[in-house]
Amino acid sequence: MAKIYFDYAATTPVDPKVLKAMSPYLKKEFGNPSSIHGFGQKALGAVDEAREKVANFLGCDAAEIVFTGSATEANNLAIFGLAEKGDHIITSKIEHHAILEPCQALEKRGVEVTYLPVTKEGLVESAEVKKAIKPNTVLVSVMYANNEIGTIQPIAEIGQLLKKIKSSNMPTVRTQRTFEHSNIYFHTDAVQAVNYLDCNVENLGVDLLTISSHKIYGPKGVGALFVKRGTPLKPLIYGGGQEKGLRSGTENVAGIVGLGQAIEEIQNPKLKIQNIRIKQLRDKIIKRILKTIPDSRLNGSPRLRLPNNVNISFKGVEGEALVIALDQKGIAVSTGSACSSKTLEPSYALLALGLSHEQAHGSLRITLGRYTTEQEVEKFLKILPPVVKKLREISGYK
Amino acid sequence: MAKIYFDYAATTPVDPKVLKAMSPYLKKEFGNPSSIHGFGQKALGAVDEAREKVANFLGCDAAEIVFTGSATEANNLAIFGLAEKGDHIITSKIEHHAILEPCQALEKRGVEVTYLPVTKEGLVESAEVKKAIKPNTVLVSVMYANNEIGTIQPIAEIGQLLKKIKSSNMPTVRTQRTFEHSNIYFHTDAVQAVNYLDCNVENLGVDLLTISSHKIYGPKGVGALFVKRGTPLKPLIYGGGQEKGLRSGTENVAGIVGLGQAIEEIQNPKLKIQNIRIKQLRDKIIKRILKTIPDSRLNGSPRLRLPNNVNISFKGVEGEALVIALDQKGIAVSTGSACSSKTLEPSYALLALGLSHEQAHGSLRITLGRYTTEQEVEKFLKILPPVVKKLREISGYK
Repeated sequence: MAKIYFDYAATTPVDPKVLKAMSPYLKKEFGNPSSIHGFGQKALGAVDEAREKVANFLGCDAAEIVFTGSATEANNLAIFGLAEKGDHIITSKIEHHAILEPCQALEKRGVEVTYLPVTKEGLVESAEVKKAIKPNTVLVSVMYANNEIGTIQPIAEIGQLLKKIKSSNMPTVRTQRTFEHSNIYFHTDAVQAVNYLDCNVENLGVDLLTISSHKIYGPKGVGALFVKRGTPLKPLIYGGGQEKGLRSGTENVAGIVGLGQAIEEIQNPKLKIQNIRIKQLRDKIIKRILKTIPDSRLNGSPRLRLPNNVNISFKGVEGEALVIALDQKGIAVSTGSACSSKTLEPSYALLALGLSHEQAHGSLRITLGRYTTEQEVEKFLKILPPVVKKLREISGYK
Repeated sequence: MAKIYFDYAATTPVDPKVLKAMSPYLKKEFGNPSSIHGFGQKALGAVDEAREKVANFLGCDAAEIVFTGSATEANNLAIFGLAEKGDHIITSKIEHHAILEPCQALEKRGVEVTYLPVTKEGLVESAEVKKAIKPNTVLVSVMYANNEIGTIQPIAEIGQLLKKIKSSNMPTVRTQRTFEHSNIYFHTDAVQAVNYLDCNVENLGVDLLTISSHKIYGPKGVGALFVKRGTPLKPLIYGGGQEKGLRSGTENVAGIVGLGQAIEEIQNPKLKIQNIRIKQLRDKIIKRILKTIPDSRLNGSPRLRLPNNVNISFKGVEGEALVIALDQKGIAVSTGSACSSKTLEPSYALLALGLSHEQAHGSLRITLGRYTTEQEVEKFLKILPPVVKKLREISGYK
C-alpha cells in the first residue's frame, strides 16, 4: 500500500537536489570550518556560500544570519537573547511551544509577558499589539503563519506600527538602564511561512526571523536566525565563538549546506506554479469535506491561510482517533501540531480561537506539499467520510 | 597531490558504515518523531535505537541520554543546567572553550568558579579538586582528555573522591536553600576520549558526560549528554518538550542515527588493534621529531596521553606559520585547538602548563586517526624537518 503523506507542516522529505548538495560534506569535504588548513577552508567556504543563499532569500546581509541546531533553538536565542529581568515581551496566545515555553521560563525570572488574544479566525491584530506596548517592552514576537491552523499574521503591518512607535522615540527611565522605545525589537517565527510567503526582512520590518530547514525540504537539525545588525543579542550557547559568538559549536556543515540549497530551491520560479497547484488541492479538500461530512467546520481563516493547510473539526470525533484510523489506511495526517501530539491536551491554539474543549479535541490537520498528487487527494477524500462515520458510531454521536 | 589529514582531534571524516546507517533517514524515512502516524513512529524508533546504542557504550540507561545539536551544547547544558547564583563550580584551566566560556558567563551572573591549575604535564590532581571544594560547590567539571595536548585526566579517581565526600554528607545552610555535599555533581567532557578510553559512567563515577559525534567518525551537528537519573538539570532550550523536556526541537534523526552507529563502530574489537597501530605511529612521530629536529619539545604527558595525540613546540617557529607551510605541502595539522585557531592568542592550555608565550605560540598539534597510514607518517616525517629549518631561517633563529 503506497502511503500518503499529508503532514508537511510537521516535517518534509529532503529534496533530492538538497541531498546532492549535502553529499560531498558528508564524505570527502569533512573539514572543520575553524581549521586554517585546506580541509577547514573548504568547509568554511561551503558554510559561507549557504549563508549567502539564506541572506539572499531574506534580503539581508550574510553577516546577519546565525545558523543554529534547530528553529526551536533560533526562537530560544531570540527570546532569551533579548529579554532580561524587568523587561516586557509581547507575544500571542497561539505561538509555537518554542516561543511560549521560553516566555514562560522568563516569567519565572522576572520578565513580564503579554500573550495577545486572537480573533475567531486566529488573527493577531496590530491594534492589540499597540495597546499592549509598555515602557519596558523590549520584544514583540508574533509568528508569521500558524503551524496548526495556517493563519497568516499581518507581520508587515505590525512591523510598520513598531517602526512608527520606535521613531516617536519617547525616552523614559527604567531601573538601572535608560529606556527608549527605539529598543523594541520585532521577531517573527517564519518556520511555516518560508515555503509560501514573502520573507524579505525589509518588507516585513523585522529585526529577528526564524527559519527551519526540515520544514522546507532540507535536513533536520538545522535552523537559522536572522539578526538585524545592531540587535543586542546575547548568546544561548557559549564556546569556540562560531557564528560571530552567537552560537558556538562546530558548524553542521552538511546540514547548513542543505538549508542553503533548500532555500535556493524555494526561489525557483517553477515553485510558484507548484504552490498554486497545492492551493487548488487544498481548496478541493476543504470544499469537499465541508460538503460531504456533516457537522464539520474549518478552523482558522478561509482567506489569510497558508496554501497547504487544512484544519477541520468533526463534531463527535476525537482527532487522535481519526489520525490513528487514517494511519491504518496509509494516510499520515495530524491533530494539532506535531510537537504537542504526544499530549492528550486539546490544542491551545484552537481554544484561543474560542472553540470548546470538545471541538478543539476533534480537529484534523491536513498539510500538503511539493510531492502531493491529485490522486492522493482523491483517495483521501474517498477514505475520510466512512472513517469519520465509523468513529461517530463508536462515540455514539448522531 | 594526495592530501594528508593529521587533524583528527578537530574533526573526523564520516565512517562509510555510519553514512549508510544515516542514509534512509535522509531519504524515505523522513518522519518527525513527534508524529503519531507511521512515518513519525519509524523515526522515533530509529532515535530510540540510537539512544540504546549510546547508552550501551556508556553503561547507562537509554533514558539517561539527551541528544543535543553539538557537544558544545551538551557542555553548556551541563554547566548552565546545574549552577545558579550563589553556587560554586570547580573546573580546570585547560578545559575546552565550551566549558570555560559558560563558566565565565555564569561568573557574571553571580556564580563562583574555581579554575584548577594543572601540573607541567597538564594533569589535574584530585588533591586539588578536594582542596577547592566549598559548602556551595554544586558542580565539578573536568575533561576526560585534553584536545590540545591529549593529557588523560584521572576522572575515575576524582569520581571516587567526590563519592566519598558526598557520602560524608555534611549538611550546611546556604542562602535560601539547604545545602548538602550530596549535591555535588560531576561532569566530564569526554569528547576526545570516546575513541580510545573506557567511558563506562559507573567506572568513572560521573553524573554527566559529554559526547561529540563528529569526533568519532559520525556527522557534525549532533552531540549527547549523559544525565544520571535524579540529576536536577534545567533545560537550555525550551519548546515542544523533546528529550524529556531537556532539549526541545525536532530531533536530528539522521544525525542521531549516525552518532548511534559511530558509537557502535567504536565497540568493534578490530578497533582495539587499530588503536594500537595508531599509538605506534604516534610514538614514531614523537621519537623521530625529538631526535631529528633540535630544540623541539613534547608538550603534555608522555604516558597519560591519548594514543593519537602529538603536541610539539619548536623553538623560534610560529605554530601558525608551520600549519600554513605544511598545508601548502598537502598536510593538514593544527596549532592549539581548531576552535581557537582563528585567534592569534597563544594556547591557554600550554600557558597553564607553564610554557612561555613564545613556546606556547610555537606548538604544532598532530592528531592521527582511523585512516592514518604508515606511508603518510613517513612522508610527513620527511617533509617536516626542512620546513621547520626554513621557518627558523626566516625568523632568524639559530
